[in-house]
Amino acid sequence: MKALVKTSMAEGLTMMEVPEPQELGPTEVLIRVRTASICGSDVHIYKWDSWAQSRIKPPIIIGHEFSGVVEAVGEAVEVVKVGDYVACETHIPCLSCIQCRTNRMHVCRNMKIIGVDINGAFAEYVKVPQTVVWKLSAEIEPIFASVMEPFGNAVHTALVEDLTGKTVFVSGVGPIGAMAIQIAKVSGAALVIASEIKEYRKSLAIANGADIVIDPTKEDVEKRVMELTDGNGVDVFLEMSGSPEALKQGLKVTTNGGTVSILGLYGRDIPINVDELLTFKGIRAFGITGRKMFETWYVADKLLKHKKVDLSKIVTHVINFNDWEEGFRLMMSGRCGKVVMKF
Amino acid sequence: MKALVKTSMAEGLTMMEVPEPQELGPTEVLIRVRTASICGSDVHIYKWDSWAQSRIKPPIIIGHEFSGVVEAVGEAVEVVKVGDYVACETHIPCLSCIQCRTNRMHVCRNMKIIGVDINGAFAEYVKVPQTVVWKLSAEIEPIFASVMEPFGNAVHTALVEDLTGKTVFVSGVGPIGAMAIQIAKVSGAALVIASEIKEYRKSLAIANGADIVIDPTKEDVEKRVMELTDGNGVDVFLEMSGSPEALKQGLKVTTNGGTVSILGLYGRDIPINVDELLTFKGIRAFGITGRKMFETWYVADKLLKHKKVDLSKIVTHVINFNDWEEGFRLMMSGRCGKVVMKF
Amino acid sequence: MKALVKTSMAEGLTMMEVPEPQELGPTEVLIRVRTASICGSDVHIYKWDSWAQSRIKPPIIIGHEFSGVVEAVGEAVEVVKVGDYVACETHIPCLSCIQCRTNRMHVCRNMKIIGVDINGAFAEYVKVPQTVVWKLSAEIEPIFASVMEPFGNAVHTALVEDLTGKTVFVSGVGPIGAMAIQIAKVSGAALVIASEIKEYRKSLAIANGADIVIDPTKEDVEKRVMELTDGNGVDVFLEMSGSPEALKQGLKVTTNGGTVSILGLYGRDIPINVDELLTFKGIRAFGITGRKMFETWYVADKLLKHKKVDLSKIVTHVINFNDWEEGFRLMMSGRCGKVVMKF
Amino acid sequence: MKALVKTSMAEGLTMMEVPEPQELGPTEVLIRVRTASICGSDVHIYKWDSWAQSRIKPPIIIGHEFSGVVEAVGEAVEVVKVGDYVACETHIPCLSCIQCRTNRMHVCRNMKIIGVDINGAFAEYVKVPQTVVWKLSAEIEPIFASVMEPFGNAVHTALVEDLTGKTVFVSGVGPIGAMAIQIAKVSGAALVIASEIKEYRKSLAIANGADIVIDPTKEDVEKRVMELTDGNGVDVFLEMSGSPEALKQGLKVTTNGGTVSILGLYGRDIPINVDELLTFKGIRAFGITGRKMFETWYVADKLLKHKKVDLSKIVTHVINFNDWEEGFRLMMSGRCGKVVMKF
Repeated sequence: MKALVKTSMAEGLTMMEVPEPQELGPTEVLIRVRTASICGSDVHIYKWDSWAQSRIKPPIIIGHEFSGVVEAVGEAVEVVKVGDYVACETHIPCLSCIQCRTNRMHVCRNMKIIGVDINGAFAEYVKVPQTVVWKLSAEIEPIFASVMEPFGNAVHTALVEDLTGKTVFVSGVGPIGAMAIQIAKVSGAALVIASEIKEYRKSLAIANGADIVIDPTKEDVEKRVMELTDGNGVDVFLEMSGSPEALKQGLKVTTNGGTVSILGLYGRDIPINVDELLTFKGIRAFGITGRKMFETWYVADKLLKHKKVDLSKIVTHVINFNDWEEGFRLMMSGRCGKVVMKF
Repeated sequence: MKALVKTSMAEGLTMMEVPEPQELGPTEVLIRVRTASICGSDVHIYKWDSWAQSRIKPPIIIGHEFSGVVEAVGEAVEVVKVGDYVACETHIPCLSCIQCRTNRMHVCRNMKIIGVDINGAFAEYVKVPQTVVWKLSAEIEPIFASVMEPFGNAVHTALVEDLTGKTVFVSGVGPIGAMAIQIAKVSGAALVIASEIKEYRKSLAIANGADIVIDPTKEDVEKRVMELTDGNGVDVFLEMSGSPEALKQGLKVTTNGGTVSILGLYGRDIPINVDELLTFKGIRAFGITGRKMFETWYVADKLLKHKKVDLSKIVTHVINFNDWEEGFRLMMSGRCGKVVMKF
Repeated sequence: MKALVKTSMAEGLTMMEVPEPQELGPTEVLIRVRTASICGSDVHIYKWDSWAQSRIKPPIIIGHEFSGVVEAVGEAVEVVKVGDYVACETHIPCLSCIQCRTNRMHVCRNMKIIGVDINGAFAEYVKVPQTVVWKLSAEIEPIFASVMEPFGNAVHTALVEDLTGKTVFVSGVGPIGAMAIQIAKVSGAALVIASEIKEYRKSLAIANGADIVIDPTKEDVEKRVMELTDGNGVDVFLEMSGSPEALKQGLKVTTNGGTVSILGLYGRDIPINVDELLTFKGIRAFGITGRKMFETWYVADKLLKHKKVDLSKIVTHVINFNDWEEGFRLMMSGRCGKVVMKF
Repeated sequence: MKALVKTSMAEGLTMMEVPEPQELGPTEVLIRVRTASICGSDVHIYKWDSWAQSRIKPPIIIGHEFSGVVEAVGEAVEVVKVGDYVACETHIPCLSCIQCRTNRMHVCRNMKIIGVDINGAFAEYVKVPQTVVWKLSAEIEPIFASVMEPFGNAVHTALVEDLTGKTVFVSGVGPIGAMAIQIAKVSGAALVIASEIKEYRKSLAIANGADIVIDPTKEDVEKRVMELTDGNGVDVFLEMSGSPEALKQGLKVTTNGGTVSILGLYGRDIPINVDELLTFKGIRAFGITGRKMFETWYVADKLLKHKKVDLSKIVTHVINFNDWEEGFRLMMSGRCGKVVMKF
């Protein structure tokens, strides 16, 4: 089969013929890939940056955001059957740690990741354990189904609290931030304020329904948010930028007793005044990683099935798998939402 | 001032001149009424039915759904000031019972009700304790502001659980049921199914956004809901009909582990198979009365301020206070949503 | 191996030699049983009552409360390994229904039960799917480990709300009610009031730490509970009797805004005034079945490991498997807590 | 009356005769003080440190932890009556900000503090608004009643999550940390591990029921906690030390998906690796300030009324008001728990 492989410890990827996955274990599922989208971490692997160097052991087929059809199942598989239309959780839990046994598989302590630790989905076929397979509603289009993994991040981040009638501040409008904006709007948020500095992403914020977009390089975020919220600050703050400055601004403009959800990564120690920004304000803060398995997927599926969220605002480019190099170029340009490849 | 008074222990009401409220206590607020809407219980008082006979002690000014402007405040009033645009919680809590002291004023054990236990708001002025006064956002139109009290019932009932991506069944589409449908839709419910038998109310359901309306006299509710939900049943059931049959149907079609919110009143013992409908299904059920003070009002205010909910679908008639008899006739005909009187 | 078998559609059970479980599937676990306790439902099967007649298909090995040691595992088993000391969830979930996929396996819609639908644990060996196996802390004694399944019911029922500083009413003091009393006490309940009519069980209530035991045939439950709670009623009510009268009394004495947890089964429609007992009081009610898999088990395990709960107050008789008839006689006499059989 | 007054902008306090509080407003309550305890912030005011200099405007009567008897009430007071035995919330909420109106008075944006912003309770009489008065259960001894305010901090911090069967790590064992240890134990925590470096406080930890006390200057906290928790880390972490190092250690040893409650204050920006310590672990963190009004007080009252918590382990010294200088000396020595003064 055709697959996109990290063949060596250097920049680049190779499209090549590889054998199809062999030896389907009793609880494994073989999936014929229909669509796959390119994640920021795929770009890191392409570029062979320090994270990739520390984590990836070539040769490996990369790619983890995908949808497909079940081609074969191991003898003990119970969650899906041949022919089912599916997407997959990227995080493979061990099933035996205390997290896995008490409904916190998304923070499994022995996690493996598809396309990072085992062969991934930029290939005609991919083999995964049944635990991570989600049967999709038929109404969801394949070009959107491959995006359900990052969409799930947005659902997980945004819905730490019921947003109906609430004011929300979203810092950072990459594709996941943009999806969080849509989710907040469709969930009844009274007002969704975004902060973003890049022009392309400001447009993305507006296209996805942000009521207001603030550019912190041009406006005083705190002053502006306070004006927009009758001096109260926002009820809920979603940090999706990875900028320490944005984290602090967001905490400042969160109302006392408010809720904060952090998905952004900072890559290092950051100085924070915990007293002023968290404790005296009586804030509750959620660190967000992955997706609840599968409560998050259930909500994500229903939102797409019933057309509550429109991912055509996020999936800006659909290309053929063969044109993968164009996809990576687009991703590196920063002038795109999600890029989906068809197989 | 002009007021609508229950003068005697018999059917009817009397529009008459009465003295303005006197002796504003230190924590009391005098409000000049701008709009007031007619509640089902006002009709009960008009008709002098058995509930009214057991509860009402004439003479009394009736009416409790209203908006207005603060005309005067007692010396110790802190929550509003003269000139503020306000609506009021109908339920006056005692402030001293354990419920009042632990954030459950809506189930105060010594509750008094405006227009039932003390003089009400179908009058040019009404005097209330500061505890029940809510300062409205200026963007909310007065003809909608008077409806915030029943709208709050709908918010309280619908939002016992985050509805984003959930399937919802609403039984009974009077004005509050219709508002709950809108709230569910705006809160991201994936699918909202209503059941109703009256033609007028079926139209109300559709107008307020129900995806499907089932008439239990013509269709098999259980079969239909199961078809619509891939055999799973709904995630959330809002019982707003007061029909024991609807309660049972709703419990049946609620998925295992689902959530039930009961606002409807049945007026008597009703036989229920608790084992089959609640316990084996692992359901959680909420008895709903009043509105959380003032978390519910905060959400209600924000939904109206930011035009997330359109109460013009509910307020079907706006009349002058002088035409109150027409309003009561409309209410008794059943062919209306809410009837609002302007002062 | 030796096993206790329901051989025919008539009263009684037969201790007999049967083949050991064969053909361990890839996700199955073979357990050598060390202890097993007799459940009320085992007695129903013995007696061959109407429930048993409708559900049991002889021949079948019965028994579902047990502990043991893993003897062998299928090739794809991940949650335990040979030699592990384990107990088992009785309810075998299908893994594929929406409940199973969204952390509600305890209300799986295709549930099978060990010792009811498949061969059970009153035998030297039992074969179960890995999904239901829980690795026990080594500090838990085997005679208590077999009781973890009903103990889990008590944990699940009692802990629907944080009980620290709360007043609690427990109606019905069978073994599970008695365990709930201990759990409430160890969880910081300020006052635990039990109601029970049988003398043996009244003593059980006291032995397990109830502050007060009320006999409804001799005292006015409502009056007494109100006196004991400064007229407020209790914060939390655990219904574990299966008596409709107890359910109503408990709802009456639950304070407005309080919490109700129902494990008791009534076996038929029961008339309830939902308005007065649930809705006007703003109560939230939880139907309880099974145990959360495995959040409940985690708490149960830790309570036993760290000796927070003393099950010697519940396990009143420990006998040898060969003396099973004595065990069933004790159970039918009603003059025992749990009866545990050693293998 | 006699009162302890900060008379000038310099170190020290003055015991002097001052007029009794005058002009009881309609919603104010006059309380005859029976007991009062010395808080760390009283010591700051005595010492006239930088915080005191920035906040206190002499002359002012200090003191805020106290119990007493209602001597007189304003005409509109509803929550208590003359003769009631009471303690008081220290934080006076404005009643009109959005926090005050939506059950978050403890994070009121216009908070005033008794004995800091208005005259306090180190005096024979103190005047407070009815909003902050809590009627005590008669069973609570006055020498413990004055400690309910810091005890409430401990309740608020510890009970962000149901602790039954959970493992808990408490960093910092001042009086509030010690009370949190007792609360965790009485709430069913399976294992309570404390960290503390001072000898006196290590003894306090043991006396209040800590299962293990670790001295971070002598042992590797992370290694030790992991050993004690089967390598899982703790379920709940209560940060009560104000040490940045302790905060980081605690976050490290909190299990993935665990809960963190922060009461400690650091006084400055502190560097934290949010990615590693919060986000990837999927932790939820609560900033804690004050006490929920009055849910926290309800639990605190019940725990003391029913003798679940023994504050004699915390109140190490009871002196007469006249001996206040001895009390402050004790506090400054660090060799005491709470010091209570009788009036």
